[in-house]
Amino acid sequence: MSGTLYSVGVGPGDPELMTLKAARILASAGSYAFFAKRGRPGHAATIARAHLRPDAEALRFDYPFTTELPPEAPAYRAAMTAFYDAASATLATRLEAGTDVALLCEGDPFFYGSAMYLFDRLRGRHRHEVVSGVLGMTGCWASAGLPMTHGDDVLAVLPGTLARDDLAARLSYCDAAVIMKVGRHLAKIRDALAAAGRSRDAIYVERGSMADERVTRLADLDEAELGAAPYFSIVLVPGRRGAR
Amino acid sequence: MSGTLYSVGVGPGDPELMTLKAARILASAGSYAFFAKRGRPGHAATIARAHLRPDAEALRFDYPFTTELPPEAPAYRAAMTAFYDAASATLATRLEAGTDVALLCEGDPFFYGSAMYLFDRLRGRHRHEVVSGVLGMTGCWASAGLPMTHGDDVLAVLPGTLARDDLAARLSYCDAAVIMKVGRHLAKIRDALAAAGRSRDAIYVERGSMADERVTRLADLDEAELGAAPYFSIVLVPGRRGAR
Repeated sequence: MSGTLYSVGVGPGDPELMTLKAARILASAGSYAFFAKRGRPGHAATIARAHLRPDAEALRFDYPFTTELPPEAPAYRAAMTAFYDAASATLATRLEAGTDVALLCEGDPFFYGSAMYLFDRLRGRHRHEVVSGVLGMTGCWASAGLPMTHGDDVLAVLPGTLARDDLAARLSYCDAAVIMKVGRHLAKIRDALAAAGRSRDAIYVERGSMADERVTRLADLDEAELGAAPYFSIVLVPGRRGAR
Repeated sequence: MSGTLYSVGVGPGDPELMTLKAARILASAGSYAFFAKRGRPGHAATIARAHLRPDAEALRFDYPFTTELPPEAPAYRAAMTAFYDAASATLATRLEAGTDVALLCEGDPFFYGSAMYLFDRLRGRHRHEVVSGVLGMTGCWASAGLPMTHGDDVLAVLPGTLARDDLAARLSYCDAAVIMKVGRHLAKIRDALAAAGRSRDAIYVERGSMADERVTRLADLDEAELGAAPYFSIVLVPGRRGAR
């Protein structure tokens, strides 16, 4: 009898924003897995900690790179392929032995996450269940007290890695926008927002929903702060306000 | 001592996809409020039912219209303004009396929902807390087993109410798309997807995450089904697959 792989969304950061279903599955899983940067505890594991069984086996998958590389670099792609292949093989041994494994995912498993690369490899071979989670961006707009989309607003979710002009064009062609993967791209994002005439309402959120969250107008950040945005940061541009 | 208004996201439909925080707040709120169509139990109240206190006061806000009207119709706007004004006044009496009120919201409170119109009216006058929820679309892509966005994919969230050519242009200008507010617009949406060359991957989901959910390729729906989509339906177009 083969085990089940649960891809479990653990939400945006506040452990209480995990779903009841996620908490139930973590309380029963004999094995859990998570991604982390070398030397770090891993964000998903940190969020889930209080719900994990003390006797559960922990499978830790350390990303092969400690610094960000351009995803189009051949060395990067090859290393990531090998990394996801090895992680999938590790999960498969547990599933074949009949153990259920909970794969911890920040936010939701099917929205910009590493878990999808394992899902793509294991689907059809093992039972698999996805447990939806609150998205990181959803936690951020709550932290900012910012209603995002009213009525017939169009929302664009944009990676901050896009070129400045591409980003500006897309920001001009939506009502509300979320810019993810901000990191070292924040100064360029600020320029793209200005080119699109959307600077005025742009809100910057660091570690949304976490204890040390920070919310500020993007326009209020100085050059030093623009160069030092952490991975867990996001820029929100609320919609056109179908106010009634 | 004034009460607190909690705008509580109850998630996409499966009651177990509510957050731990939402369940805690509903278990303590002396009063809860929800929107509903006349003669219906109200989706948010149905999802939350198991977590509500039996002795809590229920405040039901019946939408003034039973059929969809174009939002630009002056009569519609005037009626909705009066409706939200009255609902806010009802909440304000409870808050001023020191009672905490939980306002139940399908999905998340700040993503296409009626709760925002009350938030806009009450903010600054009363303590207010937003409890993030799993979005309806997030539950739908889990039901469909559909990883939505990889790597640097751009996601567009589009209302099905847009004109066909506008919808087609926007579908051509993103990697992944979610089309909300499908209802009577489904045949037009099918045509817009075809014009954008995005028909092949489009998935139709009805009542995602609920017991009676339905998932099918949009291309497999016949003309009668295209004309009979319920309110709780959505079309998903997954991203370009940064498969590794």
